[in-house]
Amino acid sequence: MNRRKILKAAAIGTILASTAACSKDSDKSSNESTSINKGKIEWKMVTTWPKNFPGLGTGAQRIADSITIMSEGQLSVKLFAAGELVPPFESFDAVRQETAQMSHGASYYWINKNKSTPFFAAVPGGLTAQEHNAWIHYGGGQALWDELYAEFNVKGFLGGNSGVQMGGWFKKEINSLEDFKGLKMRMPGLGAEVINRMGATAVALPGGEIMPALQSGAIDATEWVGPWNDLAFGFYKVANNYYGPGFHEPGTHTECIVNKTAYDALPIHLKNIVEHACVSENNRMLAEFTYANNVSQKKLIDLGVSIKNFPNDVYKEMFAISNEVVAETANEGDINKRIYNSWSKFKKEARERAPFAEQGYMERRG
Amino acid sequence: MNRRKILKAAAIGTILASTAACSKDSDKSSNESTSINKGKIEWKMVTTWPKNFPGLGTGAQRIADSITIMSEGQLSVKLFAAGELVPPFESFDAVRQETAQMSHGASYYWINKNKSTPFFAAVPGGLTAQEHNAWIHYGGGQALWDELYAEFNVKGFLGGNSGVQMGGWFKKEINSLEDFKGLKMRMPGLGAEVINRMGATAVALPGGEIMPALQSGAIDATEWVGPWNDLAFGFYKVANNYYGPGFHEPGTHTECIVNKTAYDALPIHLKNIVEHACVSENNRMLAEFTYANNVSQKKLIDLGVSIKNFPNDVYKEMFAISNEVVAETANEGDINKRIYNSWSKFKKEARERAPFAEQGYMERRG
Repeated sequence: MNRRKILKAAAIGTILASTAACSKDSDKSSNESTSINKGKIEWKMVTTWPKNFPGLGTGAQRIADSITIMSEGQLSVKLFAAGELVPPFESFDAVRQETAQMSHGASYYWINKNKSTPFFAAVPGGLTAQEHNAWIHYGGGQALWDELYAEFNVKGFLGGNSGVQMGGWFKKEINSLEDFKGLKMRMPGLGAEVINRMGATAVALPGGEIMPALQSGAIDATEWVGPWNDLAFGFYKVANNYYGPGFHEPGTHTECIVNKTAYDALPIHLKNIVEHACVSENNRMLAEFTYANNVSQKKLIDLGVSIKNFPNDVYKEMFAISNEVVAETANEGDINKRIYNSWSKFKKEARERAPFAEQGYMERRG
Repeated sequence: MNRRKILKAAAIGTILASTAACSKDSDKSSNESTSINKGKIEWKMVTTWPKNFPGLGTGAQRIADSITIMSEGQLSVKLFAAGELVPPFESFDAVRQETAQMSHGASYYWINKNKSTPFFAAVPGGLTAQEHNAWIHYGGGQALWDELYAEFNVKGFLGGNSGVQMGGWFKKEINSLEDFKGLKMRMPGLGAEVINRMGATAVALPGGEIMPALQSGAIDATEWVGPWNDLAFGFYKVANNYYGPGFHEPGTHTECIVNKTAYDALPIHLKNIVEHACVSENNRMLAEFTYANNVSQKKLIDLGVSIKNFPNDVYKEMFAISNEVVAETANEGDINKRIYNSWSKFKKEARERAPFAEQGYMERRG
């Protein structure tokens, strides 16, 4: 799938920028762009998403625009989509080196820097969006995240959530654990290790390369996000069995990261504006995904897609292996152990509360 | 329960103001306070909550402080707790008449102004917080809310959520539908009509009057919010049977309302600052409730409280009657019908999606 098609796919999504697009130029060198000229600061924001990609790219654009508008242009943020300034998976290092002051992406992309980065996006068998927000804001998550990223001179804020992601698109039906054996499936992060242990072969592919791989037979199955984004990529045309929910990304948080030196140099009102723009988008993006997934699921059913849960024994195995894989991250070092312990404690308490909270309610609602 | 005790109870909760408290005076008359003096605007925010009441009052304070700080004091907001400027249930009219420019409360308190106001807080058998955000931001909810409140020259923003509320505290066990007959229970909004139809007698009481009524035997049972806020009020000392989740408030949204004339007069950057401060708190308050409810549930169990689901036939009846009571609001008029239809369509689609989304995930998670 080429860039043109991705952009076309992106255009299918509703672009709901709450504020006008930012048109300021900021083509100065990175050092100049952080300096204050007549009280104006110009920041570059790189992202891991195609420009205006539904929910993800449009959400990043809303953050950039909101900062610019709330600050009356005192801090203007210009967005660069994946590949426009740096390749998508170099955006973390771009912020670290201050080629850009800010980036919007997902922390599990940086797993090669530290095995525990996925805890700040999503891990298999992990937390829902609501639970994840609670862990980050009040359960000690933010402090651990700050400590982990401080090593790279980067600070992270929550910047949106996709909600529970779907399990994926399969050319053949999944009727038992046997059907995972020998399966070639696109799967990122710690979920890849889980399906490998189930006998499948995980393949790492950026979003734009999934469709051709599925068409050519290089892969037999893929996960991506959920009905809204998956419909935009058109996977239903090649693989008609759609399973969910997935075990692997139960509430994927996107992150808003900033270069710590640049952030620390901001006056307090601009610091607050940056944080509120990110956290407000954290609320908004999940709302957009929740609404658009409901509507898109109906469209997929109308297109003849069969949407099913995996069989119970498949889920049982997926979650059992997920717990092993996630627990193993604790062996990587001191910070990894503290992240796992804090997250585990939160998850345990959330599960004890679940029968009396959202889960218990949704199971009984008329 | 007197004011002093409420404040003491409030102090039990963690006060986590993300920003410094606002100390500006704004004791001018209301007309003067909206005028721009040397570029500074001063607003009053009234609330329906005791000062710094856990989650609700502290959240309102965070909104006021965030607006003041993000705007560098161009728009400074001074908070008045319940009763400090106007009584709690007069805060909507205070904003309407611009005695205050802003208020933080819950829309179901204004049910006597229009039977459909509860749709913008919570209705029995309704939406979870995540679903409600989606309906408001993307499912047409905000436009209907704006239309409903425009009649009063008021505009509403989402301003926080408690998550699914608990069913309540009962002196005697609830083993069957029979146990609701003759029960005197504190219950607000449309939920009151539901339990009346179940044979109970709903009693309307503001939060601070619940505990003495429970102690004196004036009521046999009460709902309030959830483990965190209920522990603060100490209900477990009088009624030891704690049931949940409740049928009546599945994700209660608090609202941030502003006088429309005052809001429309703001320059665009201040409009954006007000909106982002509210929406960012909408994310944060739910995180705080989710975390604190998990921890407080454990504390209640340690205190010997028995936490249970209602029996299945009781839930079935509660939800069946809820659907009737909520549907009847559509008969009140044109706007009521349109609100009900939009909300119903969203709820239907959300329930179709639920087995493949958060509900399906939480049921299977290991």
